[in-house]
Order: sequence, then C-alpha cells, then structure tokens
Amino acid sequence: MVHEPNNWGRFGPEDQRGTLNLLTGPHVLAALSHAVTGEVLSLGMPIRRGRPRLPGRPEPQHYMSIDGADFAAGTRPVGAGLRMADDTLIVSPHGTTTHLDALCHMWSGDELYNGHPAAQVHSYGARRCGIEHVGGVVTRGVFFDVPAYLGLDHLPADFRISATLLTEMAEHPGAGAGGAELAGGPGGTESHAAAGGAGEAAGPEGAVSGGVEAGPPTTRGAAVAVGPGDAVVIRTGWPQVWDRSPDAYSRDGQPGLAADAARWLTERDVAVVACDNAAIGGLNPQGLADEPLEDDLHLILLHRHGIHLAELLWLEDLAATGRTEFVFVLAPLRLVGGTASPINPLAIL
Amino acid sequence: MVHEPNNWGRFGPEDQRGTLNLLTGPHVLAALSHAVTGEVLSLGMPIRRGRPRLPGRPEPQHYMSIDGADFAAGTRPVGAGLRMADDTLIVSPHGTTTHLDALCHMWSGDELYNGHPAAQVHSYGARRCGIEHVGGVVTRGVFFDVPAYLGLDHLPADFRISATLLTEMAEHPGAGAGGAELAGGPGGTESHAAAGGAGEAAGPEGAVSGGVEAGPPTTRGAAVAVGPGDAVVIRTGWPQVWDRSPDAYSRDGQPGLAADAARWLTERDVAVVACDNAAIGGLNPQGLADEPLEDDLHLILLHRHGIHLAELLWLEDLAATGRTEFVFVLAPLRLVGGTASPINPLAIL
Amino acid sequence: MVHEPNNWGRFGPEDQRGTLNLLTGPHVLAALSHAVTGEVLSLGMPIRRGRPRLPGRPEPQHYMSIDGADFAAGTRPVGAGLRMADDTLIVSPHGTTTHLDALCHMWSGDELYNGHPAAQVHSYGARRCGIEHVGGVVTRGVFFDVPAYLGLDHLPADFRISATLLTEMAEHPGAGAGGAELAGGPGGTESHAAAGGAGEAAGPEGAVSGGVEAGPPTTRGAAVAVGPGDAVVIRTGWPQVWDRSPDAYSRDGQPGLAADAARWLTERDVAVVACDNAAIGGLNPQGLADEPLEDDLHLILLHRHGIHLAELLWLEDLAATGRTEFVFVLAPLRLVGGTASPINPLAIL
Amino acid sequence: MVHEPNNWGRFGPEDQRGTLNLLTGPHVLAALSHAVTGEVLSLGMPIRRGRPRLPGRPEPQHYMSIDGADFAAGTRPVGAGLRMADDTLIVSPHGTTTHLDALCHMWSGDELYNGHPAAQVHSYGARRCGIEHVGGVVTRGVFFDVPAYLGLDHLPADFRISATLLTEMAEHPGAGAGGAELAGGPGGTESHAAAGGAGEAAGPEGAVSGGVEAGPPTTRGAAVAVGPGDAVVIRTGWPQVWDRSPDAYSRDGQPGLAADAARWLTERDVAVVACDNAAIGGLNPQGLADEPLEDDLHLILLHRHGIHLAELLWLEDLAATGRTEFVFVLAPLRLVGGTASPINPLAIL
Repeated sequence: MVHEPNNWGRFGPEDQRGTLNLLTGPHVLAALSHAVTGEVLSLGMPIRRGRPRLPGRPEPQHYMSIDGADFAAGTRPVGAGLRMADDTLIVSPHGTTTHLDALCHMWSGDELYNGHPAAQVHSYGARRCGIEHVGGVVTRGVFFDVPAYLGLDHLPADFRISATLLTEMAEHPGAGAGGAELAGGPGGTESHAAAGGAGEAAGPEGAVSGGVEAGPPTTRGAAVAVGPGDAVVIRTGWPQVWDRSPDAYSRDGQPGLAADAARWLTERDVAVVACDNAAIGGLNPQGLADEPLEDDLHLILLHRHGIHLAELLWLEDLAATGRTEFVFVLAPLRLVGGTASPINPLAIL
Repeated sequence: MVHEPNNWGRFGPEDQRGTLNLLTGPHVLAALSHAVTGEVLSLGMPIRRGRPRLPGRPEPQHYMSIDGADFAAGTRPVGAGLRMADDTLIVSPHGTTTHLDALCHMWSGDELYNGHPAAQVHSYGARRCGIEHVGGVVTRGVFFDVPAYLGLDHLPADFRISATLLTEMAEHPGAGAGGAELAGGPGGTESHAAAGGAGEAAGPEGAVSGGVEAGPPTTRGAAVAVGPGDAVVIRTGWPQVWDRSPDAYSRDGQPGLAADAARWLTERDVAVVACDNAAIGGLNPQGLADEPLEDDLHLILLHRHGIHLAELLWLEDLAATGRTEFVFVLAPLRLVGGTASPINPLAIL
Repeated sequence: MVHEPNNWGRFGPEDQRGTLNLLTGPHVLAALSHAVTGEVLSLGMPIRRGRPRLPGRPEPQHYMSIDGADFAAGTRPVGAGLRMADDTLIVSPHGTTTHLDALCHMWSGDELYNGHPAAQVHSYGARRCGIEHVGGVVTRGVFFDVPAYLGLDHLPADFRISATLLTEMAEHPGAGAGGAELAGGPGGTESHAAAGGAGEAAGPEGAVSGGVEAGPPTTRGAAVAVGPGDAVVIRTGWPQVWDRSPDAYSRDGQPGLAADAARWLTERDVAVVACDNAAIGGLNPQGLADEPLEDDLHLILLHRHGIHLAELLWLEDLAATGRTEFVFVLAPLRLVGGTASPINPLAIL
Repeated sequence: MVHEPNNWGRFGPEDQRGTLNLLTGPHVLAALSHAVTGEVLSLGMPIRRGRPRLPGRPEPQHYMSIDGADFAAGTRPVGAGLRMADDTLIVSPHGTTTHLDALCHMWSGDELYNGHPAAQVHSYGARRCGIEHVGGVVTRGVFFDVPAYLGLDHLPADFRISATLLTEMAEHPGAGAGGAELAGGPGGTESHAAAGGAGEAAGPEGAVSGGVEAGPPTTRGAAVAVGPGDAVVIRTGWPQVWDRSPDAYSRDGQPGLAADAARWLTERDVAVVACDNAAIGGLNPQGLADEPLEDDLHLILLHRHGIHLAELLWLEDLAATGRTEFVFVLAPLRLVGGTASPINPLAIL
C-alpha cells in the first residue's frame, strides 16, 4: 500500500483505469463543445528512422514484405493484375515514439496502481493494468505552452516546470510574462533558479534574458483553469533540439515537470498528462530523473493516482495555432497486456 | 491512368488523401453533433494471441523486455526503488489486426491512387500515399448491421452484401425485414442467391430460412442515408465464427461486400468504409476474391476513389447498442511510408 | 536438487556445459578421423515460409530492408554505383527451425541443470546456462536411421523409439530387420507395441506390416556403438509428412524417443542428441508429451545430464548417403542468454 | 558483364557459390590435417546489447517469451511440473553481428556475381545467390594478425593493409618486423603512408614508432603461404577500440584491406576472407569506403570473384594462441534468400 496521497481504492478495488473513470458520457459531451473550427491536428511524431528517442532505446523498424518496386522489377501480380504493398512494424514505444503509458508501466514496491500485484506483469504481458483497459479517451485538452509563455523557443535542458508556473499560466492567461520568469520574478523557485542557470548556458541561442525583458506581456502559451478529467498537454519544445542535433537532444538531459507540478495536477484530478519530452519529468545529463523516489513523476501521477501519461508528443503545430482548449482524443491500440501503445493523439480544434 | 469512374485529379494532382479531403472543419463540427450519450466505444479487436486472422499471415508478437516477474525473482530496482515494465510489438496489420489501409496498399498497373508511380513504394516504405497522410479522421459513422437486419447472428461465408440491400437498409430503416432477404425477396440478386445457398449450408447453426420468415420486421441493423465524407461501418458478424472455431473462420471463405455495393458507396462519396471482415469484399474458400479485376473491391474503393478502408473491426459491442449514427474517430499511427496502421477506431455514441 | 541419475556436480559446481566437457582436444582430433570423403552436408532445414513447425509457434520472418528490386525501380546507388541488399531475420527457434536447445531451456522445480537457480533466467536473458556457453561442437556423429532400419519411409506418429531398438541397431548393424520390429519381433516393448498400432493406422501410406515382413534384412539405417561425447543423430523421417500435408504433421502427434532410450543415451554419456522431430520425445495428437514428469525426455537428457539437444534437423540427405559415422559440427550463435540458437549442423562425411 | 578480372562463368553459368566450389572432398580432408591440438575456438562476437556495430544499424534484439522469473513469480508449470524458457531473436546481421555475406549482398550495375539478374533480389528474398547456397564451409584457415606483426595492439583507423604487407607476412613468417612498417620501411606504399600518419595520431596509445624500432623481430602475427580455397582470416584488432569507447569505434573510421590486398587474395584463389572489422575494406570518418568503384573491396572479392566475406569476427582469442594455420569452419543458417547469416565461425586448432 502506498502512503502518499493517492487514488487507490477510489474507483473500486478492481479498477484498472484510474482517473479515466472521470470521463463519463456527460463529461465527453461537454468536452466536445470545445471544438470550434473542427480542424483535426495530429499530435504524434512521425514514426520513421531518425526521430527523437532516448539513447539505447531500439528505434522502430519498418519493413516492406512486398512493394511496388518488386512489381516494377518483374514480380507477377496476384490473379488477373492486382498488386499490393504490405509491411511490418517493430516498435518498443517507451523512449522512441509518441505513446501512452499503461498503468502497469511503473511502480515501486510489489504493487501496481490500486494495489494490483506487480508479479502479474510477466512475460505473457501485464495481466493487470495493461493498455487495453484504456479504450478510447475523449476529453477536454488544456494546453500549457511553457516556452511560448516564457518567450523561448524551447525550455533549457535543466528547466523544471514548477507548480507556481502552472498556476500562473492557468490563472492569468492574459498576463503571460513572456519569459520574465527566467529573469527572476517573485515566483522564483528552485526550479526557476535552475532555469536561470540554463538561460545563461543557452547563450548560443541568443541572449535569452535580455530579449525576454524587452518583450511585451503576451498571452501566447497561457492556459486556462484545469479541472477533473482534463488532458493537460504541456510543451517544452525539446524536440526542436533533436532537429538541430540528435546528440544535443540527450547530452544535457531534458526539461520536464517538477514534482510539485505533478502534485498540482493530481489536486486538479486530471485524467491524462501529455508532454513532448521523453519522461514527463526532467532528465539529467545521465538520462536519469533527479527526484527522490517519493517525488518521482511517474510514481506520483501514474502509480499513485492512476493518471495516464503520454510522452514524446509533437506539439509544434499545436503551438502555432495559439489554442489552449480543444477536444483531446486518444485511441491507443488494444494491445492486451501492453505496457504502452504507440499513439497518434488528436486535437479537434 | 484508370478509365473506370474515379477520383483521380479531383483533389489536385498531388493529392494523397482521397475523400478524406471532404472532412473539412465544418464537416467535422457537424459530425460531432451525432454524439448523444457521450459513451466512447472501441471498435478494435484486442491484439493478442489467438484472435481472428487470415491463414498464413504472421500473428502479432508481443514481448516484454522487463516485467514485474523479473523484480519478483530478484532483479534490482532502478535507482532508489523504481520498477518498470517495457515491451515490444511486432505487427503486420493486414489480415491480422484491426487496421486502416493506406492508399498505397493496392493497385493495378503501375500507378497508385491519383496516378502516383507505384515504383515509389519500395523497401524504404511508400514515398507516395503512405498511411502518414491520413492524420486524424473525425466524421459521422453510419452503421449497417447486416446480420441483425436479416435476423442472423452472422452472415454466411458466401454472402455478398449487394447495393440493393444497402439501399433498402438505408431507405427503410423502420422496415427491416429480419432476414427476408435470405428467403429470396424481390430484391434478389446474384449475391442474394449465393446467400440462399449459404443459408442451407449453415444448417448446424439453426434453420436460418425458417427462423427468418417467422421473424417480425425489425429496425435492428437498419442504417440511415449515407452522404459525402461519412464513415460507413458494415457488420458481417464473421468474427463470431472464429470464436467458435478458428478453422471455420477461413475454411469456407468470408462474407463481404459485392462490387455493386462498393460502387454504391463511391456514388455517395464516403470517406471511409470499415468492416469486420478481413478484406471488405468476400473471400472464397481459397481465401481469394472472386471478382474480376475491374470489380475488385479494393480497386474500386481505395485505388480509384481514394476511399480509405478499415478491416477486421470488432463490431459486436456496437451492434448491441442499436445505434446507427455516431461520431467515428480514427487515429492511425503516423508511420511514414506505411501501407497500413493498426488502429483502435472509436465510436462516440 | 534432483534425485534421479544425473550429472549435476560432475563437471564442477559452476559448470554450464554438461557433457560437452567431454569434447577435449584429443577427443576432437579422434572425431576428425571419421571424415572419409570430405563431403560436407548441411543437416539444417531451410529457413523460409512453409517449413515444418509446431502449431502456434511463430514462423520465422525474413524482411529485406533494401534489395535489387528497389534499384531496378529507380533507387539511386550508393556513392559512385554500389548497390546492396540487406535484410532482417526474426526467429523463435523452438518448434520452428533447426536449433540447439541451451541447458536453460527446460527444468522442473526451481533449478536448472547443475543446480543453477532458474530465477536467473529472466527477461534480460538466461544468466545461467545460456546458449553462449556451447561455443563450437566438433565430435563424432553416430546416425540411427530408424525408419530405414525398419524398412519404412518414416515412423508412424505414435512410434516411440525404445532402448531395445537402439541397442539392436547399434550392436547388430549388419542384421537390420527391415521393419520386422513393427510386425512384433521378440524385442517387442511397450514402445514397439505402440508402433504396431500405428502401423495399422498408417494404412493409407501402404501396408506397412506386410511390406515389412517381405523385406530382406538390410544394413541400411544401422548404427554403430555409441560412446562418451558422441553426437547421436536419430532420424524419424517425420519431416516428409509435412511435405505431404502440413496439417498431418501435427494432427496425429509425432514419433520420438521413448524414455528408456533417453536413459540408454545417458548411460553411454553422449554429448548431443539430435533428431528430425520437434521435441526429441514423441508428441501425442494434442501436441504434448505423454511421459510422466520423471520420464520427460528433456528432463532426463538436458536437465539432469546436461546433454544438449538439437531438434528439427533435416536428415533425408544424410540418410541417402548410408553413412553411420561422420564428423558432426555445431556452431550455434553466441547469443548471450539465449535459450536456443538456430543452427545449421554439419556432417563431414 | 564485368570487365575487370573475375570468376564469372568459371564454375558454370548457374553457379551461385563462387570459390566455395574449390572445397572438394579431398580439399576438405587435407584441411582437416591442420588440426593439431583439437581445441575448438569460437570466432564470433557475443550477440548482446552493447557490442560493436556501425552507427545507424539496428542492434540485435533478444526477447524472452517465457522465462524462469515468470515461474518464480507464480506462473504455473506445464503439465505435471515442466518449466521452460523460450525466446526470440531479431537480427540484421550487416554491421551489427559476426556474419557471412551472401554473394547477393553487393554489386554494381544490374547483375550479381556470375551475371545473375539483381532484380531477382526482391522483398521475398534473394532468388539468386542467397546465403542458403553456402551450405557448410570446412577449409584451411590462414591467419594474418597484422597488428601483432607490426607490434601494435590494433591498427590505426586509417591503416589500409596492403598487398605488400600481406606478401611480406606470408613469405617471411619468421622475420616479422614488429611494426617496422609503420616506421616507413622499403615496402612503403600509399597504404603504408596512410598508416604512418595514423601512427602519429595514435600517440596517446604509446610511442608507436619508437617502441616498434626497439622491438626484436617476431613471428607473432606472421602467416603462411595462401592458396586456393583457403579462408584468410585477417585481424585489425579494431574491436578493442569499442571496448574502450563505442564512440571512438566509428568516429575516426576503421582500418581495413587496401584494394591491392583484395586483388592479391583473388590471385591466390581464396574461398573466404574473414576480418574483425565491419567492412573488410577500411572506412573513413564518414563511415564510407574511400576506394573508387572499381577498387571497392566487396566488388573485387564478392561480386567479381565470388569470394565469400565474413565480417565483425572476434579474433582476440585466436591471436592469443599464436596459431597461423587451423581448420576453419562456417555453418551459416540456411536462410533462403538471405543476404547474410549471423555466424559463429570456428577454428579447430
């Protein structure tokens, strides 16, 4: 049993869906009202060679078992003239691909979320809390475009998004400071301090602090009040670093949420946290989380509260729309016993 | 160039999305209005050992690279106590898994849909008409529950769903005949005749014809008018046969659409055709389509008209709801150059 | 600890190679003297679609990641004109491919061969008794062509090769009875009785018993004395059944060794037992072994005595040579922690 | 048709085995006479995470589908108590694993070795010159331990082994210069010049030139006369660099054979060239060969002469024996249509 605040037992002793239980029919209908233009945006990274991934993780492999080149080279069509292409995908979603973590993905001790025995996660797959329990997710998406709020292209590697910053972004969407945080505002926390240091290190990308101070307040990146069942989508902008240099993507670590931000999200009873970094929390240059066990982001959100986590999203296009509310849709594969599913999250704008 | 009726050029010479182009923002907003209860239903088959697939196709493989049993057996946790499960999926979607065909999946001659050169589909993936062009699909779903309309558990293997039957179901949703078709109604076509024969062969499952004649008219399974951009979801009930006997699933072939039903769908300008059989069209006991090349279901729908095809859906739960209209959502993986994506189609009821 | 006769501790408490330890340098040099013509024969089945495998086992998958058809269809060569083909193999050796079992493949209780803790075989691979401990095997091969000895094309599905039959074949290589065993000779055992029944069931393949009685004594299939470190290669002929009918290959079970034959082999201190069936022992129509646990073939040979087992060999070509002694060579992949390796066993004749 | 010196047509118009045809029975028997101690040495690298491979190549993946940890965690045994471990290997041999290239692996123009049409190498595998044509290889192995001959731990990245150096090593096995080559002896060639530069760059590893001059002549690393059908095994020592630093393994390129060395080998009619580098020839820091097309090592050896190439061997243990002649054995998997096979080459000493 966990002792920290948690949702164990809240949805019944057999529950394997966590806060997805909040997505009742009426909730879903209300969420649909956030569609304004009807544009449908993919928030998944393209799956192909050379996309962001953590070092040491196996890159997705895609093989054609029959293709057009074969026919061009003389392979006979099927029957009277039918030609076809067929393929195979090998994918290890964690750390390589936009994916949704199942509630069986991480734990401490011997129990998964809700007290399910971890030993039931074995070579035949997870017999508890597998990804097949998700079904479909349709809810309101609330977007926190943190670098836009701070007037940055992307967060520095050692930036940790604090609860204070989320509060500020949610409560004062019209007063976004365009990076004033980095210059050391009154809301400064340890996380912000870290960001300050990073800002200095980010010199080659331009004089971050100076440009920020000069910038006018902006609403870009500002979100709205977060509530039960929401999917909170948080942008760090970190995938841009890969496009500049795959080495740099991992060398200095990755920005992410601070532990207090995770607690802030659990207090608001969200259903999904989705981020464009690899691990929701930040990573140090060794590729590890710096938080002590009780503050581990996955343990706070996924293990204790049954909040599903989506990672490695592509949020650059969403950022360009300026939208902070939309319909958020996930349709993870019904992979029985899966610890995750590759996904293509949708935003209906 | 194809000479039969087609959509080549209609959406521009470079188009790779076919009738998905009809899903404009206003179309999507209108589609969302079909959500009534807000319940979200998965229409994907569970992915695991022992689910329906075509003979000779490689079953999806799912491997755990670290799991709870390892920790139970003594593997040391990561860092201060973190434990995790990780896995890998190998999947060849066609014929094995609920999936969406890309427009590069089938063709005749040397050109894909819209005249794209088929030779561009090579070992590195499809450089034209790959599944990544789909993005997300949000549209109205219209459900044709054919066996329910005919008063059957599932269609017989040699049943071919005719245009006449679709018309009847769409135009007279209140007058469903509960299987009168099988007894040889006035709308009889070659396809229906085939069904008659199958009805006799289906003896062990109960006296199909007799039971049907006695049944009262019913609206179960009856659909509504089909229009541009719709996702037409067609149930044959065939997956039930697998659950009785995997051998029987393929031995006698599979029920499916007749060629004139495909033309009926192209005339109504649908965006997606989704079915619970393996190939949209029917299969004979040899596992092949009986249609001549010009009537091939994939060529009519996908190749000539750019209509995306989803196969191997699980529609038993949807059938139980009695709903014929709903919001239909697809979020195929953004697999660059993919000939298909495994999917978990959603119905928002 | 096991209580039945075993080799645990014999080669030291840390041993992970079993009777392969008998293959000292002098033993290898002596073995090489059995090469007479220098012809090198492959005893591995071709790896491709449609070869013998047990039901439910995943067929090897082979994918080309670049090939000649791509270049024929216009893919640009590398550099100034270099073209290349590259590929990927997915293989689960047990039950699908000619392979060598590692000593970690089977056990009862909590200990592997030699008392190694079975819990050390986890998702990261076998930390004890993995296939990488084999290295290379060069020893004398001794061939028991049982169907040839009995005057049959292949053994019936329920035939179990008894110790008595092996003794007879080894001691009287010149007096082979050409199938008299099947007709119920004085050496009859329970295993032979089973074979008698099978002979009757095998009617459609020809009048086994009758033909056998008529046959003259023959030396075909007769082996020679078996000794320490030998690789005993045993032919059932069962792969022929697949070539006639893949369904028949598994429907009636498979012929194999009886438990007393396994004990006969352990008494002779062999290093390898190699067979062309799927499980060394026989299988019943349910695909299972009929022996009680203490008589399980894998437990007797592999678990208790550290004798490596090779399965699914292709022995038809070797049978055609009439040779009973040769140099037997195995070069399993050095797959660290592997439970098996696909192999291409060689006979140097 | 190729115009440079070649073996096309030499072994018949249908030949797909090249100089392996030289391995007649008498040749094999003669080769066996080179076994002296009977020790059997594996020349394959262990297959596991973190072994030498070229950048961008997919690392072998090894998954357990059932293992001891599962049983320790409560999975029920099979039947009365049988427990087992099973696994799956995904391997793309080129650039990742000790492997043998098939004759279909590389070519220029539209023809494979012996004029076979390259378009026959398509998604279903190579219909010409696939690895299944190799069978088993048993021949004399002749070892060129180049760094030992030169008094180095390993060759520098830009070292190219010249024909002159091979001649010297083969003709004067007793007069090995212990690295005098690097100091610029009379046999200097362009390749040696490159080595000279590398020697300077190799400063941190010790004063190469100086140490070499001081060293006494040695026979370590010296080979013997090379003849028809031999397997020539050439050590660069480059895998040691990986063990020091995986980054360094590829950053500066790799040492390898010069084009004139390849021609030297074709003149001696060898059957196999096996090396511990990744590409037989050297690689520049971009990971490419520097030779013009007519001098490409794979084209000279494999494409024009049908000489099989084995790469990424582990030769450190062989080097430690001081042996230059032995029995060399290859048993590549009979992967039909394969462009390569992972292998565990054996040296019978």
